[in-house]
Amino acid sequence: MDSFILRGNIGFSQSPDELRLFADSFLVCHEGKCQGVFSRIPEKFRGLPLKDYGKSLIIPGLVDLHLHAPQFPFRGIGSDRELLDWLNTYTYPEEGKYSDLIYADKAYGIFVEELRKSATTRAVIYATIHREATLLLMDKLESSGLVTMAGKVNMDRNAPAYLTETTDSSIRETRRWLSEVAGKYQRTSPIITPRFIPSCTDELLGALGEISAEYSLPVQSHLSENLSEIDWVRGLVPSADTYGGAYEKFNLFGRDVPCVMAHCVHCSAAELALIKKNGVFIAHSPDSNTNLSSGIAPVNRYIRQGLRVGLASDLAGGADINMLRMMAEAIRASHLRWRLVDDELPALSFANVFYLATKGGGAFFGKVGSFEPDYEFDALVIDDSALVTPKELSLAERLERLPFLAGDRNIQAKFVSGQQLF
Amino acid sequence: MDSFILRGNIGFSQSPDELRLFADSFLVCHEGKCQGVFSRIPEKFRGLPLKDYGKSLIIPGLVDLHLHAPQFPFRGIGSDRELLDWLNTYTYPEEGKYSDLIYADKAYGIFVEELRKSATTRAVIYATIHREATLLLMDKLESSGLVTMAGKVNMDRNAPAYLTETTDSSIRETRRWLSEVAGKYQRTSPIITPRFIPSCTDELLGALGEISAEYSLPVQSHLSENLSEIDWVRGLVPSADTYGGAYEKFNLFGRDVPCVMAHCVHCSAAELALIKKNGVFIAHSPDSNTNLSSGIAPVNRYIRQGLRVGLASDLAGGADINMLRMMAEAIRASHLRWRLVDDELPALSFANVFYLATKGGGAFFGKVGSFEPDYEFDALVIDDSALVTPKELSLAERLERLPFLAGDRNIQAKFVSGQQLF
Repeated sequence: MDSFILRGNIGFSQSPDELRLFADSFLVCHEGKCQGVFSRIPEKFRGLPLKDYGKSLIIPGLVDLHLHAPQFPFRGIGSDRELLDWLNTYTYPEEGKYSDLIYADKAYGIFVEELRKSATTRAVIYATIHREATLLLMDKLESSGLVTMAGKVNMDRNAPAYLTETTDSSIRETRRWLSEVAGKYQRTSPIITPRFIPSCTDELLGALGEISAEYSLPVQSHLSENLSEIDWVRGLVPSADTYGGAYEKFNLFGRDVPCVMAHCVHCSAAELALIKKNGVFIAHSPDSNTNLSSGIAPVNRYIRQGLRVGLASDLAGGADINMLRMMAEAIRASHLRWRLVDDELPALSFANVFYLATKGGGAFFGKVGSFEPDYEFDALVIDDSALVTPKELSLAERLERLPFLAGDRNIQAKFVSGQQLF
Repeated sequence: MDSFILRGNIGFSQSPDELRLFADSFLVCHEGKCQGVFSRIPEKFRGLPLKDYGKSLIIPGLVDLHLHAPQFPFRGIGSDRELLDWLNTYTYPEEGKYSDLIYADKAYGIFVEELRKSATTRAVIYATIHREATLLLMDKLESSGLVTMAGKVNMDRNAPAYLTETTDSSIRETRRWLSEVAGKYQRTSPIITPRFIPSCTDELLGALGEISAEYSLPVQSHLSENLSEIDWVRGLVPSADTYGGAYEKFNLFGRDVPCVMAHCVHCSAAELALIKKNGVFIAHSPDSNTNLSSGIAPVNRYIRQGLRVGLASDLAGGADINMLRMMAEAIRASHLRWRLVDDELPALSFANVFYLATKGGGAFFGKVGSFEPDYEFDALVIDDSALVTPKELSLAERLERLPFLAGDRNIQAKFVSGQQLF
């Protein structure tokens, strides 16, 4: 079990600039791990069952490094506001509903089923402040077969009363949540989730840093998304040099545990130096950053600087969970940045964004996002025959158009960590 | 016949800023013309057949003011180039194939069928230089039930040999094409189509201006899309003040006949004044302008200045023919323009882009794009139940999310000029 061979037209990223393509080849999974791509089945794998996907495309599963599960219900609505106004108008009223477990059960049921059907195989997810609803979400994620990290959100200031915890209760509920999920799941794990600096007092941030260290738990949050937000943080944590420095001050900025920060649209040089030093992952969210008028992150520079970058939908700042689409949005935003902001930074290529969506973000989960030997076996089989054309396309061209044209309806099969989801 | 009543949740544009919404109402079509929206069926229409679409949404059909039919085969491929390089690398080699009528038959068959299934009810279309293939395209468009204008393209310089006509042959073939289509179609009409200034000698432009005047035919072309293109035009027609002035010089810039110019990303004040004076339509193509790194047109300013603006896919600079998606791209591009270029020009609202995609572009076809009385009856019935959410959405919210989430798979029924296509 968890050992088999897929046959089809295969592509994966070797590096940010190098896409490897294998027409009509064999991809071997042994005990949930990739063994590599072969033009003929090697002798030692001859006994494994073969699934022949004919002309279909086979690529690594896509990794969504940042999305908000409770915001799924209003995706596609409300991109007429900037971040802080958007939070108050659309986001907080919706998130408040998750104190009601009946609503949470229905809403998270829909969200997880849509995520299961999507191109996403792994995701790093915000829930809400509500411990019980977060558990419900994690139960559903576990059942889906996806591999995810999900976080009960912490917020003890600057939010509506119905979404504001006391500092004590926020810490207590976080510890209780962690004890409840300890050892419970195979594919679902907790991640410490201070919403962002404006929502968390210094005392709460300090406690979360301690909890992260105590349990060796990864951390997710938001960083330098919007100019007004950055100004606000400067006032809230005057002792920190930068927004990132405010997390660092409370031991919530990588270094000892994995950390992913969404957005990084307006990072200063000092902040980027700290990101590099601490190995913090950047979750580039081009759809959201456009919808909420945040700006365009200089992602190609981040790649050249050797930072760790992946791609994210940031649902529901992003309007969709389709990570193929997010690859297109990353390319498109980088074109406008080149034209309008800085023509010395080249736009992102297809190879670049394919890397971000697979191996780049996959690294947050370990050896994930590639078909090189020893990588966990996450794969999508895509039947692109419905994307009808009279033109004879090369394998490279067939892959290149997927971000612009394909969605969950074109996914024929999906494998996560060696298990076939459909 | 062509007389019936639709029941559903109805929305249409009254003006660029005013969307009118009617929950559970009746939309009356009498002999192909809209009679208005009613909360109860008026006495005089009681005998008409009723189609009850229940909870579905009913909106005017969408108008695509600019797209290239022969570029459909490579949609989603090649957005790694700017305009002039993209033309030489991707576009011209594909367009060259339409000298082969077997290829043209297959390719245009696919294109027209996809357009028929899409949200587009009317379109203004480029073919290629090839007269016979253009006729084939027009035959297929006529059979589809869509209402379209299509043009044999004229090119007699600065293109590969296989796509370059002699000036005489370009004029002669255009006249022959016009005689062949005269009176042939109900829903398909010819439009004069100089590719753009760089592709046409002064002599050819002069002749096309004469033909347009002689037959009272509308004109389509490209204007001020890309900075290198604009520089090139300045050198090619030094006697014209502006790129638009170069068309004007040859009587190809509105005034006496309808004229639509695609893009208008980088128009000067003088060019805009001429556009206004001559009543030229602007086909805003946000997807293409982003993909090809052209820039972002200040569309909201054009609307405030009272210019005539519609929306366009510009397939295959745009990657898709989904005009719902183009509404999202117009909003999204306007957000980035506000953030990165000019924070004094507000971003486009949903009401703005809904207007552009319906009544704004519809005006190029006459009284089209609204459900006000006497408008031609073009309508889409959209079943948004597959866009699943636990949230109770208002009618406004249901419409607002369509551009971000919906496509042809959500279109339940489609009517063009009173005829039901499916």
